[in-house]
Amino acid sequence: MQGKAIQDHYAEPGCHCYGCGTANPQGLHLKSYWEGEEAVCRFTPRPYHTGIPGFAYGGLLASVIDCHATAAAAAAACRAEGHELGAVPLSRFVTGRLAVDFLRPTPIGHPLEARARVTLLRGRKAAVAISIISNGQERARGEVVAVRMPPHWGLGEAA
Amino acid sequence: MQGKAIQDHYAEPGCHCYGCGTANPQGLHLKSYWEGEEAVCRFTPRPYHTGIPGFAYGGLLASVIDCHATAAAAAAACRAEGHELGAVPLSRFVTGRLAVDFLRPTPIGHPLEARARVTLLRGRKAAVAISIISNGQERARGEVVAVRMPPHWGLGEAA
Repeated sequence: MQGKAIQDHYAEPGCHCYGCGTANPQGLHLKSYWEGEEAVCRFTPRPYHTGIPGFAYGGLLASVIDCHATAAAAAAACRAEGHELGAVPLSRFVTGRLAVDFLRPTPIGHPLEARARVTLLRGRKAAVAISIISNGQERARGEVVAVRMPPHWGLGEAA
Repeated sequence: MQGKAIQDHYAEPGCHCYGCGTANPQGLHLKSYWEGEEAVCRFTPRPYHTGIPGFAYGGLLASVIDCHATAAAAAAACRAEGHELGAVPLSRFVTGRLAVDFLRPTPIGHPLEARARVTLLRGRKAAVAISIISNGQERARGEVVAVRMPPHWGLGEAA
């Protein structure tokens, strides 16, 4: 995968997320890339990300869906406004609602691929549908409603 | 809080979860206790569990809801079958569907309290409603459909 990830464009103070922040040394450093009409995030669950032995815990998959959806929303909003990623400051979206259907266990040690489609952009809201695939099978599906933060949120109230 | 947590009754191989397993040294070690007609989990988000600065990332709250719901389901099933916790081997539930509404940011450094009510127990399924409160305000609401694992799941196929 070439180039900067969507999260590499998050400016202060939006870059400290445990899931995807470039400025969180303990975090997962999830990275989302725009490909065609989707955003794609690839991540290999680590040995200690166990749920039932051999498979990832549900909270990890929820974290991937959460961070990947807000990244996809930010990139889609940027594109919808006629800009290339990186040309203007990227808006930061946060999650209002998250739903995950766990279809079958997601193996540890195999790279998973999360594919996100932004199905609605209206006002401050974005709806994002995500599919997680690992080892050739769909493992989980997510639906997220993401909300755009006001432009200067970091300078006053946090939310 | 006195006595053993619900997760302290999870037997091998059900005790390795990153969220709540007693046998996962890197994990969060979430603990759920039965109180009255609810299960309660208290946890203080650590400084690196940041989402937006000062507040917990969504995946952490989803993890709390996920692990706490399956614990509540296991305890409720045990009680519904007429047993005290610890009197018989505890069934292990896994999450089929998880939904979280993020109502307002959840502060880092304050203990959060997640309260779980099991609203349905039928066949292998349990429905669980969870409210997360921190610093006097409700921060998130979760709904989980949990599924009971077959009694000898650890000896054959994982799921």
